[in-house]
Amino acid sequence: MPPPLFPLYLVHSKLATTKRLIKRILRFTGPGCSSFGYGAMEELGPFRVKSDGKTLYRNVYAWNTVANVIFLDSPAGIGFSYSNTSSDYIKNGDKRTAEDSYTFLVNWLDRFPQYKNRDFFITGESYAGHYVPQLACTILSKNKNKNQTVINIKGIAIGNAWIDDGIGQMGTYDYFWTHALNSDETNAGIHKYCNFTTSNFSSTCHDYLTQGNIEAGALDVSNIYAPVCNLSSPKSGPSGSVHDFDPCSNHYVDTYLNLVEVQTALHTKATKWEACRSTPWTDSPTTVLPTINQIISSGISVWIYSGNMDGLVSVTTSRYSINTLNLPVNTTWRPWYSGNEVGGYVVGYKGLTFTTVRGAGHMVPSYQPERALTMISSFLKGELPPSE
Amino acid sequence: MPPPLFPLYLVHSKLATTKRLIKRILRFTGPGCSSFGYGAMEELGPFRVKSDGKTLYRNVYAWNTVANVIFLDSPAGIGFSYSNTSSDYIKNGDKRTAEDSYTFLVNWLDRFPQYKNRDFFITGESYAGHYVPQLACTILSKNKNKNQTVINIKGIAIGNAWIDDGIGQMGTYDYFWTHALNSDETNAGIHKYCNFTTSNFSSTCHDYLTQGNIEAGALDVSNIYAPVCNLSSPKSGPSGSVHDFDPCSNHYVDTYLNLVEVQTALHTKATKWEACRSTPWTDSPTTVLPTINQIISSGISVWIYSGNMDGLVSVTTSRYSINTLNLPVNTTWRPWYSGNEVGGYVVGYKGLTFTTVRGAGHMVPSYQPERALTMISSFLKGELPPSE
Repeated sequence: MPPPLFPLYLVHSKLATTKRLIKRILRFTGPGCSSFGYGAMEELGPFRVKSDGKTLYRNVYAWNTVANVIFLDSPAGIGFSYSNTSSDYIKNGDKRTAEDSYTFLVNWLDRFPQYKNRDFFITGESYAGHYVPQLACTILSKNKNKNQTVINIKGIAIGNAWIDDGIGQMGTYDYFWTHALNSDETNAGIHKYCNFTTSNFSSTCHDYLTQGNIEAGALDVSNIYAPVCNLSSPKSGPSGSVHDFDPCSNHYVDTYLNLVEVQTALHTKATKWEACRSTPWTDSPTTVLPTINQIISSGISVWIYSGNMDGLVSVTTSRYSINTLNLPVNTTWRPWYSGNEVGGYVVGYKGLTFTTVRGAGHMVPSYQPERALTMISSFLKGELPPSE
Repeated sequence: MPPPLFPLYLVHSKLATTKRLIKRILRFTGPGCSSFGYGAMEELGPFRVKSDGKTLYRNVYAWNTVANVIFLDSPAGIGFSYSNTSSDYIKNGDKRTAEDSYTFLVNWLDRFPQYKNRDFFITGESYAGHYVPQLACTILSKNKNKNQTVINIKGIAIGNAWIDDGIGQMGTYDYFWTHALNSDETNAGIHKYCNFTTSNFSSTCHDYLTQGNIEAGALDVSNIYAPVCNLSSPKSGPSGSVHDFDPCSNHYVDTYLNLVEVQTALHTKATKWEACRSTPWTDSPTTVLPTINQIISSGISVWIYSGNMDGLVSVTTSRYSINTLNLPVNTTWRPWYSGNEVGGYVVGYKGLTFTTVRGAGHMVPSYQPERALTMISSFLKGELPPSE
């Protein structure tokens, strides 16, 4: 019996006007981080927490303006998800996460059978570069079984996604160098001494990587141009604007989700809520590129998107990873637009779409909510983002 | 008789408290652009123009908080500078600009002899990568003459500076590629078909460069992450904040400097003021790297700084240019700090300091006024920017 996972289900808020567009999106953040705390409360959900940690403000660019959305804290032990069997917490890993999430979905659809035939999409960021393709593969495989609930999966979209250990690390430091966070000397040392193919790093390589981190300084690597959180600077009353992401948002969410009345209202188990928890991990392949290839072969839509201010899982990393897939280009690189601005760039490959989001860090909808909504709307419609 | 040039002289506003720090800074913008319109009114001057084009707001990070500052519109025909001899306008070029600026300075010091012994610095951005080193060379050379006003030049600082045609163009497109504005294919084509050493571009090369520009889309290349000016979006009353640079600022300045009462107050010739004018140009060397080398040899301080969001004269270009000088590194790459944030990075070479300004476009003090002031204060003190 798998542990219960905590979902937040948001009904599509414009259902009446856009009846044909009924989708469900499952969003993960990780590893060890809560999809509800980040995805829903700081990124694409309808509300964000003001600086008082007690009150909310609207996100007019919430993704449930275009789809029904489920946020799932996975695996058990993360966010509000838990198990009554404490040994479950030491058995977590990629495979278990995919299996438990699949079980959750089937149970959920059995409980709400009116959604069984709807188009279904999965999105996620960061370590969800593992979770999303693995869950998609599980679904595609289980869908073939007889007497099994068929999940009508149409596509996946992964943002600033960790999909290959070696390429990921090389892309990070190449991004550091090309974005003038690192010296030429350190970059040369990294490329001379680090073997990113094996990820079997020598101590000299480690020294250069450490030097790269030191050279970058006290930055928020997840958005190299964003301010860092400075809670000592006074705020005059509760504030919050979806147009100006507050770098201290995680503190406000932390305060909010630990309020007794909030936990009661959400029907969660009373708990000391934490956005991220380090948890033992039994399995994590060094690359999910073969999994992504498998999904491409299945014919469902695959999007990889990348906020271009993220130094953690950088746009450089995304490009390197996609290049190794050697897919033919269908639509050459072009800008896409949102609100009269370049929203980012897009390349259409055979079986895969790559988009960047201009001015966004690791958590794309936090920094660029309007552009993120434009992009995900195109993804749901099966179109490339607008060319003007 | 050289034409009169329009200067704006701002007295150091904290003279009483920092008596020892009396400097003068000559600032250029160009080619063909007004130092007064950009440098003073949009970047480092004490006032900026509100969105009504009629009223001003304070820039608390003005550079005249740490030095006396002269803004000079040069050559004649630019901004409020003019000549009564119209043939002067077709004789403009690098040499003439340096000579006329030098004559201006000597005349100015003769008129205000109390400043003759003060430390003197020159700064400028963009095409001032030509003007500033050339004027510095002229000063260093003329200082050797007997019976000549000696200008006590101590250093130069050039920002996002155009100093080598070939390197400049290569750096621009490499920046486009590494900042995910261009495709891998276009970048490969540019490097295959464009000879940046000779700048003698084939038509195939031109096609690839054009493709690079098309791929980048409708961006403000001078700050690839900034919003573009959209005057159709309504503003509620005159607005302006030094913490949030308005992309339409040049429109407001244009309106303001064309007000009759403003031109009267400034004692300018009544004119249709324009921020930039295209003007015939008689001479422009393909590189000023030899000039910069000459200044380094003279022993005065040389700083090259670069706002790292500028795609026009990019940080990549600056790094490439400096690398060709083959200077030994004295202080290795490190972050510098301003207001508890990484302000940028600094490398100390023998005879040259390179600094980047994080989050700044082409016009560094427009986008990052606090960081720019921290940096220029260190330059004036002959120190590297703060390490914490």
